[in-house]
Amino acid sequence: MAAGSLRLASCHATMPNMLNVHLVPHTHDDVGWLKTVDQYYYGDRNDIQHAGVQYILDSVVDQLLKNPDRRFIYVETAFFFRWWKQQSDGMRQTVKQLVNEGRLEFVNGGWCMSDEATTHYSAVIDQMTMGLRFLNETFGPCGRPRVAWHIDPFGHAREHASMFAQMGYDGFFFGRLDYQDRDRRRTDKDQELLWRASDSLTPPMADLFTGILPNGYNPPDGFCWDQSCDDPPIRDDPDLEDYNVDDVVNRFLMIASGQSLVYKTNHIIMTMGSDFQYENANLWYKNLDKLIHYVNARQANGSKVNVQMRLDDFFPYADNAHNFWTGYFTSRPALKRYERLSNSYLQTCNQLEVLGGPFSGSGPFGHDDSWTMRRAMAVAQHHDAVSGTEKQHVANDYARRLADGWQHCQVVVSNSLAALSGSSAKRIYCDNLNISVCPLTESSHKFSVNVYNPLARPVTWPVRLPVNGTAYTVLDANGKPVDSQVVPVSGATRQVRKNRGSAANELLFQVQAPPLGFSTYSVSLQRRGPPPASTRPRTPPAIQNKFLRATFDPDTGLLSSLSNLETKQTIRLTQNFYWYNASDGNSSVSNQPSGAYIFRPNSSTPFVISRTAKTESLQTSVVQEVRQWFSPWVSQVVRLYADSRALELEWTVGPLPVDDDLGKEVITRLDTSIDSSGIFYTDSNGREVLQRKKDFRPTWDLEQTEPIAGNYYPINSRAYIKDDVNQLTVVTDRSQGGGSIQNGSLEIMLHRRLLYDDVRGVGEPLNETSDVFPEGLVARGRLLLTLDRPQSAADTHRPLAQEVVLQPLLTFTSGDLHPNTRLEFSGLQDALPPAVHLLTLSQWGEDSVLLRLEHQYQSGESKQHTQPVTVNLKITTTFILRLTKKKTKQNKKNSTALSGNLPRRFTAQNRKRAPFVGPEQTEALRVCGGFWQMVQR
Amino acid sequence: MAAGSLRLASCHATMPNMLNVHLVPHTHDDVGWLKTVDQYYYGDRNDIQHAGVQYILDSVVDQLLKNPDRRFIYVETAFFFRWWKQQSDGMRQTVKQLVNEGRLEFVNGGWCMSDEATTHYSAVIDQMTMGLRFLNETFGPCGRPRVAWHIDPFGHAREHASMFAQMGYDGFFFGRLDYQDRDRRRTDKDQELLWRASDSLTPPMADLFTGILPNGYNPPDGFCWDQSCDDPPIRDDPDLEDYNVDDVVNRFLMIASGQSLVYKTNHIIMTMGSDFQYENANLWYKNLDKLIHYVNARQANGSKVNVQMRLDDFFPYADNAHNFWTGYFTSRPALKRYERLSNSYLQTCNQLEVLGGPFSGSGPFGHDDSWTMRRAMAVAQHHDAVSGTEKQHVANDYARRLADGWQHCQVVVSNSLAALSGSSAKRIYCDNLNISVCPLTESSHKFSVNVYNPLARPVTWPVRLPVNGTAYTVLDANGKPVDSQVVPVSGATRQVRKNRGSAANELLFQVQAPPLGFSTYSVSLQRRGPPPASTRPRTPPAIQNKFLRATFDPDTGLLSSLSNLETKQTIRLTQNFYWYNASDGNSSVSNQPSGAYIFRPNSSTPFVISRTAKTESLQTSVVQEVRQWFSPWVSQVVRLYADSRALELEWTVGPLPVDDDLGKEVITRLDTSIDSSGIFYTDSNGREVLQRKKDFRPTWDLEQTEPIAGNYYPINSRAYIKDDVNQLTVVTDRSQGGGSIQNGSLEIMLHRRLLYDDVRGVGEPLNETSDVFPEGLVARGRLLLTLDRPQSAADTHRPLAQEVVLQPLLTFTSGDLHPNTRLEFSGLQDALPPAVHLLTLSQWGEDSVLLRLEHQYQSGESKQHTQPVTVNLKITTTFILRLTKKKTKQNKKNSTALSGNLPRRFTAQNRKRAPFVGPEQTEALRVCGGFWQMVQR
Repeated sequence: MAAGSLRLASCHATMPNMLNVHLVPHTHDDVGWLKTVDQYYYGDRNDIQHAGVQYILDSVVDQLLKNPDRRFIYVETAFFFRWWKQQSDGMRQTVKQLVNEGRLEFVNGGWCMSDEATTHYSAVIDQMTMGLRFLNETFGPCGRPRVAWHIDPFGHAREHASMFAQMGYDGFFFGRLDYQDRDRRRTDKDQELLWRASDSLTPPMADLFTGILPNGYNPPDGFCWDQSCDDPPIRDDPDLEDYNVDDVVNRFLMIASGQSLVYKTNHIIMTMGSDFQYENANLWYKNLDKLIHYVNARQANGSKVNVQMRLDDFFPYADNAHNFWTGYFTSRPALKRYERLSNSYLQTCNQLEVLGGPFSGSGPFGHDDSWTMRRAMAVAQHHDAVSGTEKQHVANDYARRLADGWQHCQVVVSNSLAALSGSSAKRIYCDNLNISVCPLTESSHKFSVNVYNPLARPVTWPVRLPVNGTAYTVLDANGKPVDSQVVPVSGATRQVRKNRGSAANELLFQVQAPPLGFSTYSVSLQRRGPPPASTRPRTPPAIQNKFLRATFDPDTGLLSSLSNLETKQTIRLTQNFYWYNASDGNSSVSNQPSGAYIFRPNSSTPFVISRTAKTESLQTSVVQEVRQWFSPWVSQVVRLYADSRALELEWTVGPLPVDDDLGKEVITRLDTSIDSSGIFYTDSNGREVLQRKKDFRPTWDLEQTEPIAGNYYPINSRAYIKDDVNQLTVVTDRSQGGGSIQNGSLEIMLHRRLLYDDVRGVGEPLNETSDVFPEGLVARGRLLLTLDRPQSAADTHRPLAQEVVLQPLLTFTSGDLHPNTRLEFSGLQDALPPAVHLLTLSQWGEDSVLLRLEHQYQSGESKQHTQPVTVNLKITTTFILRLTKKKTKQNKKNSTALSGNLPRRFTAQNRKRAPFVGPEQTEALRVCGGFWQMVQR
Repeated sequence: MAAGSLRLASCHATMPNMLNVHLVPHTHDDVGWLKTVDQYYYGDRNDIQHAGVQYILDSVVDQLLKNPDRRFIYVETAFFFRWWKQQSDGMRQTVKQLVNEGRLEFVNGGWCMSDEATTHYSAVIDQMTMGLRFLNETFGPCGRPRVAWHIDPFGHAREHASMFAQMGYDGFFFGRLDYQDRDRRRTDKDQELLWRASDSLTPPMADLFTGILPNGYNPPDGFCWDQSCDDPPIRDDPDLEDYNVDDVVNRFLMIASGQSLVYKTNHIIMTMGSDFQYENANLWYKNLDKLIHYVNARQANGSKVNVQMRLDDFFPYADNAHNFWTGYFTSRPALKRYERLSNSYLQTCNQLEVLGGPFSGSGPFGHDDSWTMRRAMAVAQHHDAVSGTEKQHVANDYARRLADGWQHCQVVVSNSLAALSGSSAKRIYCDNLNISVCPLTESSHKFSVNVYNPLARPVTWPVRLPVNGTAYTVLDANGKPVDSQVVPVSGATRQVRKNRGSAANELLFQVQAPPLGFSTYSVSLQRRGPPPASTRPRTPPAIQNKFLRATFDPDTGLLSSLSNLETKQTIRLTQNFYWYNASDGNSSVSNQPSGAYIFRPNSSTPFVISRTAKTESLQTSVVQEVRQWFSPWVSQVVRLYADSRALELEWTVGPLPVDDDLGKEVITRLDTSIDSSGIFYTDSNGREVLQRKKDFRPTWDLEQTEPIAGNYYPINSRAYIKDDVNQLTVVTDRSQGGGSIQNGSLEIMLHRRLLYDDVRGVGEPLNETSDVFPEGLVARGRLLLTLDRPQSAADTHRPLAQEVVLQPLLTFTSGDLHPNTRLEFSGLQDALPPAVHLLTLSQWGEDSVLLRLEHQYQSGESKQHTQPVTVNLKITTTFILRLTKKKTKQNKKNSTALSGNLPRRFTAQNRKRAPFVGPEQTEALRVCGGFWQMVQR
């Protein structure tokens, strides 16, 4: 066969007229999966999985030093950081030398290799920043990753490719794609492509060269020389038994030749490594050295290059006909929500750390910073973290890290709010308001509520506080009374909260908070006694406010229509809950069970949980509710606040019963009169929206083998269906999976409880229980429904979704506030324009902050908002950040004013720059497509 | 608890008033077991067992270089040698430096860690020589092992301890001993002892300090940090989860404290390693460094020392009440025989390599040497080689190596015999004479037989050659006719040889050969035609020669008595075959099945194979035979040669039927009228004999839990029972297990076929089949019985056993020899005295030879021969070695004559010398107790 030239990536000379095989020694180190991130780092719990990253890095560095021709790439900065801080100065110098010489090369370089389906883009940018910043500050330009490397995530989001392009990566490699797509690409030699990852950004702003790896991310069969493998080593001592050099070389050349047939160019890659490999790197390198030595005697020719363009993403991912990785879009809904909520906490923490100035880190509530929370969130982006595909104990560890991070942030937040308000009164945090638990409000006669708004626009927000009184006086920051209502805690909430709270009622009122600031409300008990005017045990014909009207079927208790009163549009809308019977693997077609990764219903027809709902209704001046009860494990509140343009569906699902030995995957389905023609839309990582078409893939001729699972897509923040006149948009409070199986229908998977492992490595069924819920986890969440004209729907769902992602933080203070307390504050002189989202405001160094602005509209989705916007800004180095809208005068003294058309600043030239954030920590400005960012001293 | 001082052995300062914990980082690398030696070296077939010694040595050296405080011991030179020859000059210098600084230390240092039950002392000395010589020549004095280290062998032979003492080791450590013995010793703090390992040698010649390791050879529970272990690493970064330094230190001190309670001194040892560990030594050392660092803050006191003496050995070894490792004494009887026979081949090859001078290595039959055979034999001494406890494919590899070695030696032997005889006629080797297969003799009309005698005394030897004629003329070297007989090949032999030969008859005659020399016989066909006077189908009343008479029971066909006609003593003797039903593990008492290691009969009463034997008899002038047929799978020939003082029982056992699903362990049992009082005797590694007493151990109060297996001992070359007047000695042709369960009875296990693995790691049932014997392996062997007065029995069995160990080599030449051919030759001017055995004569360097003499009698066993003997010797550097008995004149010109009383030269002083053989390759003389050795240029 055709022989070739064999070399370790990178920087070795190549041969233009030969087949060049680039061997890439690498390890793939999950930042948590079967073990926790620290167990992986140390190599603890090797009974679960043999993996110890500290030893991998020890060993790789050792082996690189033994032979200057050796190369290694490293990916996950969360681990590298842990290792680096334990190294001596001498070792650090040695490693810097290796990096400078290109022998150790970082690729991707984020804190973790994030999941692509269930992560929100803001958290991904944060985690990439953490990793890249560390590499930049430690190694400078030589440490800059040139390629993005997402070899393991289970499908690939277009928004990820867009972000990578905007970060300046030269290219992107991944390993997993649909088996049909892969087969077609192999046949057509179409495994290199140019991914046009945004339809908003002017090419080539979001264009990314993308390569599909030949063998997942594993070495070719028979060439795995890790300690975890059993492949035969190269035995080249003719005095010993089993001399096998000729056999090895022949096999290798055969594989290289075969591989060259499915790629276009005469350069092919082989990933020489896999999960947690190179713990004893000598095994790999000793044999690789020999392989290169013995192979490089033979020669071959190559051919020409032509790269195809791709516009869609790589979801859903199937590794075979009945094996769709679409279950993890929803797996562990509670963790997914906690991660999303924690992102909001972190942004608030970061912002207040800046706004409070030096007092934030050191004040009346102690010394602390946002570092723990940043790391916890960065780790949570990993593709076995928020994805829900880790073992239970690892999921617990992620949650614990987030909780721990939040504890640290509470110190920062308390200090900062003390500085900004002038009051060091103790602040109480109530993290369980979603189940109406807050000891302070349950028992206190008088307390105040500080509402911090992390958005750069003012928000109006409904507050629900658990109380035991029946009437309260609520005053706003100006001492003006606010309309409030007391309603009884629902039976569903009582059931879920168990004995974690004792509130009989909920106090409801609307709050407003200024951009990037807070407003404070005071609450006083007026009356104890019997509960207030209670719920009525019947289905009302409708609930409505000035924007929306939702009607109910009096016979079933289900929603029957939704109207937008402003636009005067109405659709038929029924909504109910169903469950798919999860395949247990006992099927003649395929033995694939549903599990943490895989969604595989036994039948395409889900079981209805109940055709009718028992209902109660409640109508007050603040809110109107229809409380629906479907079964002991499914209930819902349909809720319409007085000032809201969205109908809220607060669902409560669980514990899913499994005493019938059937795994269950619960969906809610919205069936409408919209003529959606088999098309629906989902967002990519919370940002751009992609069109989805039933039983169709844009880039290949799909043979649909799983009518449900094969039509599921990640719904990261929203999904919609539309026709010419109506668009129904659903904004979710976490990542979920869903699809549109029938015309006019949209289903969203809410919760899953499964009895079998799906044989993708996690080794556990996804059967969540906890101390509080030994009978099975209960999940609660919210869907926000809006009905609009398609051409203006984004004007509603863009800000709405940002309000769900970055929700106000409530903090409580018992009793009266000191009279000098500042009750209202804004970090901005004015709200930012509607198109501009304040993505990041965080402390960068001791004397510098990082600011990221984002143009949050997609091309063509809003007549009003998709235009470029000009923002002038001024940042003081003292306490307060001042971002002003359309201010043109620049203060040159203490600040730098920068302006630019957002998001259109991008050239091919600056794509060659580092994907680093502020490499010099100076005033560097980087415009990254829809993002605009600066570091300001 | 009491803290202590913690250090890596060796050479670190100790603290006299503290508990000193010596951590010994080590790896135990089996020279074959589940994989072959070369598979282990390279790390091939890691699917069977993860183990790659090349990487272990790579990694350990790397890690030693990282910290000068680190230490490592290495044991198996077979592996180290393989590694060393692949290293660069720079690496060799580095390793020498490590050795010189005591950071890398060799212990034991033999080519392998030999088995102690089934090895013959001569082969053990050879393999130790190979390893120690390599270390000496490579590293000089700093490479000298100071302690013997037999951590894994399954019981411990006194002769091994004796040899180690005589080789100059300072001490001996082992790991396995009977659980009752161990428990008693732990209770009594009696785990250090002085082993008086010979009752012949004047103390302290064979005294050896012996230490019992605390935990087998493993690290304490929870402290295994190898890649193969799951114990928690030391996690000392307080920023990460699961900081555990305090927990680790506390657990360690608890263990150290507990261990100090079962040892006498304030120095205790911990073996930090195990099978094939340290392939990634970083894991071990990184954690050991931390352990030492964190533990060495605490202090404790020690106590005094008093070491107990031990005289017996450590057989049998039980790791629990029903788990006696006494099966491997017999496991793989064919391999055990082949190994023993190969030893004879190797000694012959070595001798002829010397005697033939430079022509041996380079002559008419090619260029070759004994190196391959030496290595094959050395590897075969391993405790999972000749022991029979390896996997089947590994057993095949050992056998293949021996066969390969013998192929190489045949070149040497042919060259040497050509030089010594003056004839380069082609020599034919017939390796299957034991089943009457030899194509040359089967077909040739005329051929000659060269009989080479590797003993230093003349031998008389019966020859049996497969032929198809019915009468032959046999002439000796002087042309004198020799009495010969032709008898029909037995049915049992025909059955065993299958289609591998076609001889109808066997030609029998006696040969004589001079000491260390050969004699040549010529054979000419006289008559073809009908078979000769055939066997008679009946049981003769007796067979007898001038020395012995054996009678038979005409009803049963079994032996009934044995008489020594010279001493006029007669005993009742019946002999029959039985099988124990091997336990399959289904027992309420214990779930231990019989297997490669473990012997565990289901019942203490064996099943008789047949109460009667069908017999044929045959009486000729050369031999008398009674051929007994017990079953299709058990037969025997009782044979008495005209000139023999031993009755030969040639047994043929197999294929053992297992279609009844019962594993079988076949014994032969000799029941006599000897009043043996529950006592019998077995040899230790073919040398000194130890007394065994039923249900008794000399050093502790035995609770006997396995009445058969617990009374089995290794029979390496002989066993006997005796009373005041009669001693019945059985000399075996290989290592076997046996016992004396009833008074006057002696049983020997011959063959085993088992259906279950015994859960000691080999993972296969001992169920031998082969290409030739797919239905189950057939084993054939010989027991030689002598009846003597106890006080003079050794005068017979000592030379008899040596004749079995070093048997004459027959080589054949077709047709007439050239008239100038020298037909007789001796390397000695005279035979050595009867007490002196020529143990070794082999080429040492190009211009030097190694000579070992041995006083082969044990103290008190022979009135005639246990006295010191004086031998004068002269070695020429040309062709011929001249050892002369009682010659006093010394030739100063070309040789050095040395004399000494054998075996009494030994002082405490020279025990401190290296256990090396000829460290300077000069005229060094070493007297090792019963051995006497020199290297002569």
